[in-house]
Formats: sequence, structure tokens, C-alpha cells
Amino acid sequence: MKVMIDLCVVPMGVGLSVSKYVAACQKVFKDSGLDHRMHAYGTNVEGDWDEVFAAVKRCHETVHEMGAARINTSMRIGTRTDRDQSMDDKVESVKKLLSDV
Amino acid sequence: MKVMIDLCVVPMGVGLSVSKYVAACQKVFKDSGLDHRMHAYGTNVEGDWDEVFAAVKRCHETVHEMGAARINTSMRIGTRTDRDQSMDDKVESVKKLLSDV
Amino acid sequence: MKVMIDLCVVPMGVGLSVSKYVAACQKVFKDSGLDHRMHAYGTNVEGDWDEVFAAVKRCHETVHEMGAARINTSMRIGTRTDRDQSMDDKVESVKKLLSDV
Amino acid sequence: MKVMIDLCVVPMGVGLSVSKYVAACQKVFKDSGLDHRMHAYGTNVEGDWDEVFAAVKRCHETVHEMGAARINTSMRIGTRTDRDQSMDDKVESVKKLLSDV
Repeated sequence: MKVMIDLCVVPMGVGLSVSKYVAACQKVFKDSGLDHRMHAYGTNVEGDWDEVFAAVKRCHETVHEMGAARINTSMRIGTRTDRDQSMDDKVESVKKLLSDV
Repeated sequence: MKVMIDLCVVPMGVGLSVSKYVAACQKVFKDSGLDHRMHAYGTNVEGDWDEVFAAVKRCHETVHEMGAARINTSMRIGTRTDRDQSMDDKVESVKKLLSDV
Repeated sequence: MKVMIDLCVVPMGVGLSVSKYVAACQKVFKDSGLDHRMHAYGTNVEGDWDEVFAAVKRCHETVHEMGAARINTSMRIGTRTDRDQSMDDKVESVKKLLSDV
Repeated sequence: MKVMIDLCVVPMGVGLSVSKYVAACQKVFKDSGLDHRMHAYGTNVEGDWDEVFAAVKRCHETVHEMGAARINTSMRIGTRTDRDQSMDDKVESVKKLLSDV
């Protein structure tokens, strides 16, 4: 089963600046080999369900190892069986509609 | 690693009434043996990370098998290494503060 | 327009225990007169769109006033025009299906 | 109070393809004059709290007017009082850390 997720990992109890924890998660996704893209309030990741969730677990483990004792992540999870749709496909289908207006 | 999640599974392309899909997910959680509680806009589930996410995957598989070709789930994921805190603990700590006012 | 939300307000930079901030938000919802119910990982609130979002804004203002310099909230927002459905209706429709099994 | 949100608006009961509803929301944000950026699983929007939430409400109204009787949106909401941080600032601070590795 293929999945596309969007997640935002928020470490708690480590002060107000969390960019080094976000960077560590980006490295986890890079090392996983999964297609992923960071935006200003989270990261899109797509791939095989088990591989994607293994990477999410590794994010939590990594951020805990860095010293954050509590983590609160929010995530969207999308699966579909009717057809294969990449992150590019989703963005392009909306952009095409907008340019047609 | 223990985890507490709150998830809301939304099947798409099956009309406006989705309660039978929500009920099917409740049955998945019941069969998993994990501690879980439904509320009006999602379900809390807690337990071992791998067991919880295996149940989430089984939810998606089940809802697809029931005929929903597309699913959009939103989820919160909480982990902490400082102490063990159950769903009851979280609710009680807030209720205690409210009753003290 | 009526709305049902589920929200989880997470103050950052205030340490690991956040129950006093959660309690303050419960008080905001109570004072608002809106129907609301806390669970272990968030709170359901329903009512008129403008009243509900005024209360959400008041939560953020209150938690900032208590000293949290950064807040990260996750929220689900549900609206429907086909019929009026309360929090009780949603839970009951699923429970009925589960008891019929 | 300035706010940054990330939202994903999901119309229900309108079939599997929802790109025209997503495009309509993009038009709402464009017309609002608010800084916004679409990604593959949602949209970042930043600006004054009241203006941002007026645009979110207009999204729901627009999607209902287009014929979707039920909408389920998931949203992250970030506010901070310690400093002003734009969407670009957030992305840059992480990218800088990644390039320093």
C-alpha cells in the first residue's frame, strides 16, 4: 500500500527554537531514500506504507535522542486504491485548473 | 516506545454518511487489544508504537476493502520519555486543576 | 454556518507539563457557553462558526498571556449543509452500528 | 496577533477527484491578498489572525456553494509573541542547518 503523508514534528520542553530538530528529521527522510519535500509548516513524504512509517518512527527516536523528552506530531495520511498519484500530480492538477481560469 | 495517538479516518467517494467505516475502525482497535476511546471527532489509542501503527494500517486496509477508494486521515502522535502517562492521567491532571479553581 | 471542531493546543517553551494551559483553554470554552468536551488528546467544540473561532482565538491569547511565547495547535474542522448533526448524534450513530454487530 | 496556518480542505460526498475544490480555495487565498503557498498536501497561509480565519471561513462557504455538502478540514495553527518569523525564515533556518552538516 502506497501512502502520502504530511507531518509536523514538534519537540516540547526544549525552548522556542526547534529548527535543529526539524533538520534532524529532514536528514532521517533523506537517509530513508523516500521522496520528501519540506514546506514552511511540515513535510510531505510519499512511498510504501511500511517504509514511510519506519521513517516517522525514526524521527521520533532521533528527536528523543537529541534530548527532547516529549514530542507532539500532527500528520495527514492519504491512501488511494483507484490510481497512482504522486506529489507532483496533485500540485499539477490544481495548478492546471488555476491557469485555465 | 509507547505512543498515544488521536486519529480521524475519513473515507472519500462514498457519500456523506461515514459511520459504518468509523465503526469498522473501532472494531479494528477492539480486536487489536489496544486501549482506545472514541469521541465525537476521532479516537484516542495508546500502546506500543508498532502495535498502534499496525492497527492504523489495518484501519486503512479495512476501509479500502469496504469500497472506499480514497482515505484521508488526520492524526496527532505523542511520545514522551520522561514518564509514563496514560489517557486517564492526562484527563485527570486537567480536571484536578479545573476543580481547584 | 455551524461547525464542529476538535483542537489540541500545545504551548512551546514552557517545559513538559502543559496541563495548566489546557485547563485555561477549558475555562475559555466554558465561559464561551459553547458545547465542548475534553478527551485525552484534545477537545471537541461545536456551535456557530464565528463564536467557535472567537473562542479558539481567545485560547491562544490566554495561553500567550500565561507566558507561553509560542503555541502550536492542531485542529479538525467539520461543516455540513445537508443536516444538523450534534456531537451526540455522531457518537450514537457509530455505537448503534457496533451494537448491531 | 499574527498567525501561520497549514490547512487541507477535504470535501466529502463529491467523488474522488477534489482538485477543483482545492483550486477554488487557492483563489480565495489569492483574492484575500494573504501570503500563501500550496504544497502537495495542503497550503501554508500567514497574516493577521482575523484575516486568515476570514479566508478559511470563505473557503468552507465556497466549497459548500460548489455543491459539497460536507467538508472536513485539518489545520495547524502557529502563533508566537517572541519574534516575527515568516514562512521563508522558517524554511531558511532549517536549510542553513542542513547545509552546515
